[in-house]
Amino acid sequence: MIDKLISKIKKTQAPIVVGLDPMLKFIPEQIQKKAFAEYGETLQGAGEAIWQYNKEIVDAIYDIVPAVKPQIAMYEQFGLEGVKAFLRTVEYCKSKDLVVIGDIKRGDIGSTSEAYAVGHLGKVQVGGQKFYGFDEDFATINPYMGTDAVAPFVKVCKEEKKGLFILTKTSNPSSGEFQDRLIEGRPLYEWVGEKVAQWGSDFVGESGYSYVGAVVGATYPEQGKILREIMPKSYILVPGYGAQGAKGTDLVHFFNEDGLGAVVNSSRGIIAAWQQEKYKAFGPERFAEASRQAALDMQADIAQALESR
Amino acid sequence: MIDKLISKIKKTQAPIVVGLDPMLKFIPEQIQKKAFAEYGETLQGAGEAIWQYNKEIVDAIYDIVPAVKPQIAMYEQFGLEGVKAFLRTVEYCKSKDLVVIGDIKRGDIGSTSEAYAVGHLGKVQVGGQKFYGFDEDFATINPYMGTDAVAPFVKVCKEEKKGLFILTKTSNPSSGEFQDRLIEGRPLYEWVGEKVAQWGSDFVGESGYSYVGAVVGATYPEQGKILREIMPKSYILVPGYGAQGAKGTDLVHFFNEDGLGAVVNSSRGIIAAWQQEKYKAFGPERFAEASRQAALDMQADIAQALESR
Repeated sequence: MIDKLISKIKKTQAPIVVGLDPMLKFIPEQIQKKAFAEYGETLQGAGEAIWQYNKEIVDAIYDIVPAVKPQIAMYEQFGLEGVKAFLRTVEYCKSKDLVVIGDIKRGDIGSTSEAYAVGHLGKVQVGGQKFYGFDEDFATINPYMGTDAVAPFVKVCKEEKKGLFILTKTSNPSSGEFQDRLIEGRPLYEWVGEKVAQWGSDFVGESGYSYVGAVVGATYPEQGKILREIMPKSYILVPGYGAQGAKGTDLVHFFNEDGLGAVVNSSRGIIAAWQQEKYKAFGPERFAEASRQAALDMQADIAQALESR
Repeated sequence: MIDKLISKIKKTQAPIVVGLDPMLKFIPEQIQKKAFAEYGETLQGAGEAIWQYNKEIVDAIYDIVPAVKPQIAMYEQFGLEGVKAFLRTVEYCKSKDLVVIGDIKRGDIGSTSEAYAVGHLGKVQVGGQKFYGFDEDFATINPYMGTDAVAPFVKVCKEEKKGLFILTKTSNPSSGEFQDRLIEGRPLYEWVGEKVAQWGSDFVGESGYSYVGAVVGATYPEQGKILREIMPKSYILVPGYGAQGAKGTDLVHFFNEDGLGAVVNSSRGIIAAWQQEKYKAFGPERFAEASRQAALDMQADIAQALESR
């Protein structure tokens, strides 16, 4: 799956992930009205609204970006109906040949971690049959519990040729509280980065990159530079561009010399572009076109930053 | 909710949580056969089987234990149908007045963390209405991302009078990989423990205990002793009893002098008791009675250990 991601990045010339993190306040009135007219102001109505919203955005961007990253929290907030919308979104994105990164940040141990891995990336056994649960292509994982939390995911990924991104240095302001603390003179995130490299060392695609990648926030470019060196074969999923403040020039150190090695996420910067001053002219009816334009602008911003490094 | 948990612990004299972590291999044949006859060997059939299995166990134990802890991974592995069984289980346990600890180990940042908090513990706004998503009473949280990951949960808990258990020192063999690393001479889990105490310091129930507790594995009794002192007002959720190897005597340091301060989880040791040599006489038909007996035996084991300390 890492090879498919890289091949699609090369084809689209866009190392970009669109974060499908729908909040009702991002969704234009016409979609909300229609969904609520059909299902009422209910969880079902909300699930329908976020699904229709996602669908229009996916239709507008699937040919210019390689991947999407639905953040499952934004679906779980609507309970079972939200989870249903998550599943529909994953299925639809895959039907459009997009690589789907499930931003689930799961992490548990032993048989529990295996259950998450099976449910999100693999197949579960029911009697004599096997079924996919959510069937994302990649999943994000929390490393706090150590190898026990990661190994069952790696096992399932090997069977299914799927991949992982392990939280290493996250983009948020308080990420330093624990991640920056010094252990034998080096911050915790570097030790995690070393483990990421190790966990993925014997699971490398034809591209030369490992199926086990890392999450490193665009808001910490200096740390990104160091982690890039510690994990040369790990793809880095980079959140924090746009809404969280990072710019194209902050991203250059996350990429290797070959122009590969990183894929940058933008969520509200793309999916809620129609609400920004810059894309206001599109109006709420043409919100998906605004998203397409924002994705093209992001691509140009990153390309320019990489060219002038 | 911490006060309700403590009041129920006092009433049942059982500082016990039953982990509702259903795996198909734990479920007696008669339940599986019936579910598959009705829905086929499908995800729906699996969801029905785990729900019926849970229901019988809950009916057998709800009057002798204060709380249950469904592990959502075991439901997510069956996709949407599994999540439906999780929701039914939570609803049913609450109807039996059990305190429900959602073992979800979520952790994300800002609006994403808030979405998890809203979905699992609070109410989500849809138009002019508000709805509960999953409506557990407590949730487990991963602290790797720092205060940004925890604060939105604390906010929702304050509104809803619900509670949290933050992963501090987990029960698994590799938990030391990061959690035991020394920072200024003290292991990471102690720094996390200090934060747990701080996060919960202004959110204390009438019992004197905070709504913000910690997860500390029974497999690490010495660390439990230290963390008990670092977080005197935090309830400790203690996994690792039974199947993971810890005994009643390992648990004493997790409790305060008042006999409170800790609640011990057992999952397969109770729900799959019928498969153990010790409870074999119950047979598969009376599996729920075996679970009840295992809960009573666990209660006696802990009581004896606390008495003789």
